[in-house]
Amino acid sequence: MDKYFKIAIDEARKGLSEGGIPIGSVIVHNGEILGKGHNRRVQKRSVILHGEMDAFEDAGRQPASVYKDSVLYTTLSPCPMCTGTILLYGIKKVIIGENSNFLGWEDLLRKNDVEVVVLNDRECISMMESFIKDNPELWNEDIGE
Amino acid sequence: MDKYFKIAIDEARKGLSEGGIPIGSVIVHNGEILGKGHNRRVQKRSVILHGEMDAFEDAGRQPASVYKDSVLYTTLSPCPMCTGTILLYGIKKVIIGENSNFLGWEDLLRKNDVEVVVLNDRECISMMESFIKDNPELWNEDIGE
Repeated sequence: MDKYFKIAIDEARKGLSEGGIPIGSVIVHNGEILGKGHNRRVQKRSVILHGEMDAFEDAGRQPASVYKDSVLYTTLSPCPMCTGTILLYGIKKVIIGENSNFLGWEDLLRKNDVEVVVLNDRECISMMESFIKDNPELWNEDIGE
Repeated sequence: MDKYFKIAIDEARKGLSEGGIPIGSVIVHNGEILGKGHNRRVQKRSVILHGEMDAFEDAGRQPASVYKDSVLYTTLSPCPMCTGTILLYGIKKVIIGENSNFLGWEDLLRKNDVEVVVLNDRECISMMESFIKDNPELWNEDIGE
């Protein structure tokens, strides 16, 4: 398994162990981890810290040229908010663990020339599936439903 | 002037007085202010706290039905990130101070049945215009350029 994707899964697991929603993300530039994070809706009572957003916040203020040359890993297909953030900063490639529990705005990413790879990773699928089954209200809140 | 829009401008001014980017936002539900905030890129070294995002974070965890029945005020046309967040939470109406210094994704909002009102407010235009003139690099960083 890709070592960066493995770190995204580790972040998702960390979120779960904290009582949170198990979605993790990593941003990589030239083989170096710029930022990583996980969903913190529960932990920080945040409505904007999805996994991808937490990774951006961890990466912090970078020159546009750095973000435009970076790859983002996420365990779950990115929602409209995270898709917009990926496009704002010009991330060129997004590697997604799975999109069977939730399909985000992958089409809008592709339409804007972002390379999108979906891994259909079994561990991501089963971790998210059982979380949603056990916490339907919390999950719906996270996707605005 | 609409009293909520005036509060959004006050938030933008507060940001400016803190040395930050002067963009403010307010989220209103049934005539009650749910959250308000301003861009905090400089103040918190944040890459996700645009004015609108700061207002969402201030509003916090709300039932989907509340966000879906809310109006968002912002002094400047919303970028892709903030547009995605508005759509994630199903905000039904967005009132924008101006879009002449920056035109965000208003078309995507309209396409998704969000009512969009642009006020062409002179104070917003001149405050942002002079900020961009004096801080071109900071401004470009904020819009990923």
